[in-house]
Amino acid sequence: MGGFFTGRTLADIGRDLRAGDESATGLLARALKSVDPDLNAFVTLDPEGAEAAARWADEELAAGVDRGPLHGVPVAVKDLIDVAGLPTGMGSAHFDGHVAETDAACVTMLRDAGAVIVGKTGTHEFAYGGTGDVSVNGPVRNPHDRERMSGGSSSGSAVAVAAGMVPLALGTDTGGSVRIPAAFCGIAGFKPPYDAIPTQGVFPLSVSFDHVGVLAGSAADCRIAYHALTGPAEAVPSPVDESAPHGRVAWIEPSAIDPDVERTVRALFPDAPSERIDLLGIRQVFRAIQDGEAYDVHAERVAEAPGLYQAPTLERLKNAGRTPGWRYLRAVRERERIAREVAALLDRYDYLAMPTLPITAPKIGETEGPLGPHVPTLVSLTCPWNVLGLPALSIPAGTVHGLPVGAQLITRPGAETLLFDAAARLAH
Amino acid sequence: MGGFFTGRTLADIGRDLRAGDESATGLLARALKSVDPDLNAFVTLDPEGAEAAARWADEELAAGVDRGPLHGVPVAVKDLIDVAGLPTGMGSAHFDGHVAETDAACVTMLRDAGAVIVGKTGTHEFAYGGTGDVSVNGPVRNPHDRERMSGGSSSGSAVAVAAGMVPLALGTDTGGSVRIPAAFCGIAGFKPPYDAIPTQGVFPLSVSFDHVGVLAGSAADCRIAYHALTGPAEAVPSPVDESAPHGRVAWIEPSAIDPDVERTVRALFPDAPSERIDLLGIRQVFRAIQDGEAYDVHAERVAEAPGLYQAPTLERLKNAGRTPGWRYLRAVRERERIAREVAALLDRYDYLAMPTLPITAPKIGETEGPLGPHVPTLVSLTCPWNVLGLPALSIPAGTVHGLPVGAQLITRPGAETLLFDAAARLAH
Repeated sequence: MGGFFTGRTLADIGRDLRAGDESATGLLARALKSVDPDLNAFVTLDPEGAEAAARWADEELAAGVDRGPLHGVPVAVKDLIDVAGLPTGMGSAHFDGHVAETDAACVTMLRDAGAVIVGKTGTHEFAYGGTGDVSVNGPVRNPHDRERMSGGSSSGSAVAVAAGMVPLALGTDTGGSVRIPAAFCGIAGFKPPYDAIPTQGVFPLSVSFDHVGVLAGSAADCRIAYHALTGPAEAVPSPVDESAPHGRVAWIEPSAIDPDVERTVRALFPDAPSERIDLLGIRQVFRAIQDGEAYDVHAERVAEAPGLYQAPTLERLKNAGRTPGWRYLRAVRERERIAREVAALLDRYDYLAMPTLPITAPKIGETEGPLGPHVPTLVSLTCPWNVLGLPALSIPAGTVHGLPVGAQLITRPGAETLLFDAAARLAH
Repeated sequence: MGGFFTGRTLADIGRDLRAGDESATGLLARALKSVDPDLNAFVTLDPEGAEAAARWADEELAAGVDRGPLHGVPVAVKDLIDVAGLPTGMGSAHFDGHVAETDAACVTMLRDAGAVIVGKTGTHEFAYGGTGDVSVNGPVRNPHDRERMSGGSSSGSAVAVAAGMVPLALGTDTGGSVRIPAAFCGIAGFKPPYDAIPTQGVFPLSVSFDHVGVLAGSAADCRIAYHALTGPAEAVPSPVDESAPHGRVAWIEPSAIDPDVERTVRALFPDAPSERIDLLGIRQVFRAIQDGEAYDVHAERVAEAPGLYQAPTLERLKNAGRTPGWRYLRAVRERERIAREVAALLDRYDYLAMPTLPITAPKIGETEGPLGPHVPTLVSLTCPWNVLGLPALSIPAGTVHGLPVGAQLITRPGAETLLFDAAARLAH
């Protein structure tokens, strides 16, 4: 813990920059100095490119050109997202030596907002897993306990923020890959509504569920970054019940969960009525659609160079390749049914709350816990919001046995403001 | 051969009815008398219901109510299509004793047009095959050679028309099931554009490809029936080249085909330039999508009562259930690519021509011929037009070794007139 950016908000940084107490080049130097190689957050650092960008940011500011709250801010980018001129490795030997020719759309947005891209962060191989310890680059370590998983797949992005190396990082989230490592590492992670941030230039995992998201120390900073990336300020939706001062929230009962985790997160929402949704059904929908879409992406690699995958990835892909088409078709219908049910719930509540994860970070290399195999356990509470394309925010919600746990807030597309407002109230 | 309706057109019948030389009840009696049980075309006859409908048709005509060209005409309906109060058996032991409560949408249309429904005709089990000899009701026999297949799956509908039992029948066509038996039996069969005749009340085989179609002695009668069922007269599309007196036609090169069949059909289009499309690719698309959709319909039956299927149907379904989801996803993309290619071809030609089938009717029970297993062979030239949802008409095109062969004409949706006009020219 304890890099330069720990405890520093984007507002703090922006104030210092504009007051002349800090410069973009200075912030970059502090970021690079905060990198702790033992945590294995970064797979590529780009000191030269970042230096040039930082210098340009300083020149612009000096000339009165202000690109807003990300101007001059050091940012890390998940190694599944193309940054022109840098390797995109996907955490896989398959892409050893592969260098991106152009920026992903979200990286262009970052640059337009004046951000300084420090480097690329480690990902679970091809983003195909939530543990963050399966990668040709080795496991990314949790700064709260280096023997434990960071969570994944945006492992390095979460750790780079959690350990204060950068104040902000980009990740991707197909079943929880932004929110899971955010929760395990004690930071905030936001998965916007489907397609709110374009995925062009991001290596696909499951195209129906792939989202680009942001990771930062707090929900407030996720909000700032999200707005900086998506342009015009969000509309302010009407809450369901104007007379409810804190917004009407429902607690979604987790299916299987560590009771200490449940108690800790539930305590944040003491008055929220409990509601149930078919979490197990949604997870099956997630699985059937992701299996087909993921194998579609990888079929030729599995056939031609299976040995280049990490063993657990290859095994998952082979299973995915056998999931029959009729299950995909049924999942597509089931998804529509569940979407109608959840939409009805969101007609009655401003937002939904639940834990981000049913457990705290397991040991690196561990594949199974009391709730069963980790891979499905880790996405059990996050993947529903990928299936339904709803905005979902994970925020720090205390610790259990000394490890961070996350609370997850979900709402309807377009009502993201309600989530960020709720998170702001919970933070005070 | 040689039932009452052999050689009698809908125009002949309508003239006789309106001249008072014939009555609907009289036509019904002739239809019932023409039924040859040995051909096994009908699985259910409904003399009482048909008698009531025929009497009503006669009363209406006498009262000056004229419902148009199907008024008082005896019609047969494939046993996959619900007729209220009659069994719908699907050619399967699974639906033994099942009686439909309401009419399928296309049956309502038939009744509104004044048609008299004589009974239900035999289908390949669940319409899942083009041979017409796999059914709990036994094989439907080809009137040109009773040891040979009628083709399927609308086997009984084709034979009822070909043997002169009725002048018109409804069938369904998912991969060629109207056109295949029409061609094998020497009559005309028309598969309209996708969704032109609603499939509500028709047992599904593969929802993306299922069509309701019509079978009659000639293309002219298919045209009359199609218009009577779909309501307002079709618009007359502009041919591609007004100066071409016979419409611009391209010959689509068949992939594998009996050369005698090819020669016979090609002779009808001596001046048509040859074009190629990826027929094998389309067949793979057809297979991958149909596999998923068909098993989706049957999964519970296969799990709970596999023994009620005919053995070949069960084997096909089990294979279909294993086709992976990623192949379905790729097929959906491939279909879009091929649709663009064929649309470009139909920008240059009024219509396309090719044989309906690459072979003449095999012996009943035979599963393989010189071109390979019959099941894929039989749909090889017809299924592309289900995959693409294009209107396709099969017309008699002579005989090879004494057995009928069909020519198939295909155009873009909305341009059906061009097909019927072309068929009329070819018939003279």
